[in-house]
Formats: sequence, structure tokens, C-alpha cells
Amino acid sequence: MIIRDLNEAKGTERHIHSDGWDSVRLLLKSDNMGFSFHITTIHANAELEMHYKNHLESVYCVDGTGSIEDLATGEIHQIRPGVMYALDQHDKHILRANDKPMIMACVFNPPVTGKEVHQEDGSYALEAEEA
Amino acid sequence: MIIRDLNEAKGTERHIHSDGWDSVRLLLKSDNMGFSFHITTIHANAELEMHYKNHLESVYCVDGTGSIEDLATGEIHQIRPGVMYALDQHDKHILRANDKPMIMACVFNPPVTGKEVHQEDGSYALEAEEA
Repeated sequence: MIIRDLNEAKGTERHIHSDGWDSVRLLLKSDNMGFSFHITTIHANAELEMHYKNHLESVYCVDGTGSIEDLATGEIHQIRPGVMYALDQHDKHILRANDKPMIMACVFNPPVTGKEVHQEDGSYALEAEEA
Repeated sequence: MIIRDLNEAKGTERHIHSDGWDSVRLLLKSDNMGFSFHITTIHANAELEMHYKNHLESVYCVDGTGSIEDLATGEIHQIRPGVMYALDQHDKHILRANDKPMIMACVFNPPVTGKEVHQEDGSYALEAEEA
């Protein structure tokens, strides 16, 4: 049994910081769960274009409000606590936070190793592509 | 892209009720994400012995407090918002809620189909075993 606490993991190597967001990885590939689990904060007023070509991701809003724009259809879906989106088609999208941070519980399949970097196209590299 | 809202899913077939807990399945096997994602409420003062023999599960506490007892070691871990436990060893455990409900974001691998029932031993049957 693995026990981890978001508040203890903040500020450790599990906590990564990027432009407009930061993320605490509570489960990574090395935990052998077959998925990774992250608590990600989208900073207030952030606008993030993302495209996870190599991963499926689900995102559940725990706190805050914003929106997600599906770049394939142009549709904009409002995000508030209780709303989940799942990028089952590796959907290219723009995530926008309103004037407070959004706290999101994120699941990635395949699991993130913790060594990925966001590439210029907004995707994470697959582990094999990092070599 | 899949968009689902916890509040809209409550009271639908996605919302299942059991003794001491209820759960809204926002993602199931049929969504082809490779995991399922549930928002589960552990009722106030519930004490639940569980053993997922066929699934790995991670559970992140969004609200409420309680504890998890690892029946292999006897250890008791306190649960509060921000604490996650992962049953990476199919750990037999007792989950206890304090005097308010606990709201948990749960990930299952393999994904739950939505047709499982909790068996007498506290596990979910695998799909193949249901036939």
C-alpha cells in the first residue's frame, strides 16, 4: 500500500513547475499502477494550448472555474468543480482558468515517468522518444 | 473529447448505491481510457472491509476525514483532503469514515465495466469471471 500526501509532496521532486501551471505527481510509472495520478494547479488566468499525442488523460475539477476549447470542433465547455473531461481522442485543446487557480485531479495512461518535458507542440514525449 | 459532470450524473445509471458508500462512475471501461474514474462517497461513520483481488485502485481524498487500516501490517493511516492511498499489492484493508462523509476520487485498473458487484470477499469480480 502506497500512502502519499499532497501537502507533504509540495516542494519536493514530485512537484514540477511550468508556465501557467504546476503539478504534484502522487503516482508515477515507477509505482506500477498502470497509470499516473497528478494534482495539477492551473494558474489564475492561464491559457494553455496542449496536445498529448502519446497519452490519454482524464481531468477532474476539484476547485476553481474555467473552460476547455476543443480545437477540432471549436466547442467550448465550461469547467467547474465536479466537471471531468477526458481526452480520449488525444484531443488538441486550450485550457483556460478564470481569475482563480483551478485544482485538477489528472490521470494519465500510459503513466508519466516524471522525466517528460512538454514539447513545443504541447505534448509529452513518450519514454521511448526521450532516448 | 468526453465531458461529464458529477452533478448531472447523480441519480442516473452511473450512480450506484451500496451499504455505506455510493459512487458515480464518470469513466468506465467502455470509454476506452484504459482505466475507470469514479467519485465515491463513503458515508459518515461507515466501516468497510475491502479486498480488490482483481484490480489496482488509487483513492484521493477530496473532502472529509477517516482512516485506512492495512490488514497485512495492522498499520492505520489517517485520511484527510490531499491524502492518496494506492492499493498496489491488492491490499486487504478497512476504510473508516469519521462523522462526515468522505469524498474520494478513485481510479481503477483494469477499468470497471459498471456491471460488477462487490463479492462477499470484498472484491469486484473480473469481467471474465462474471460470465
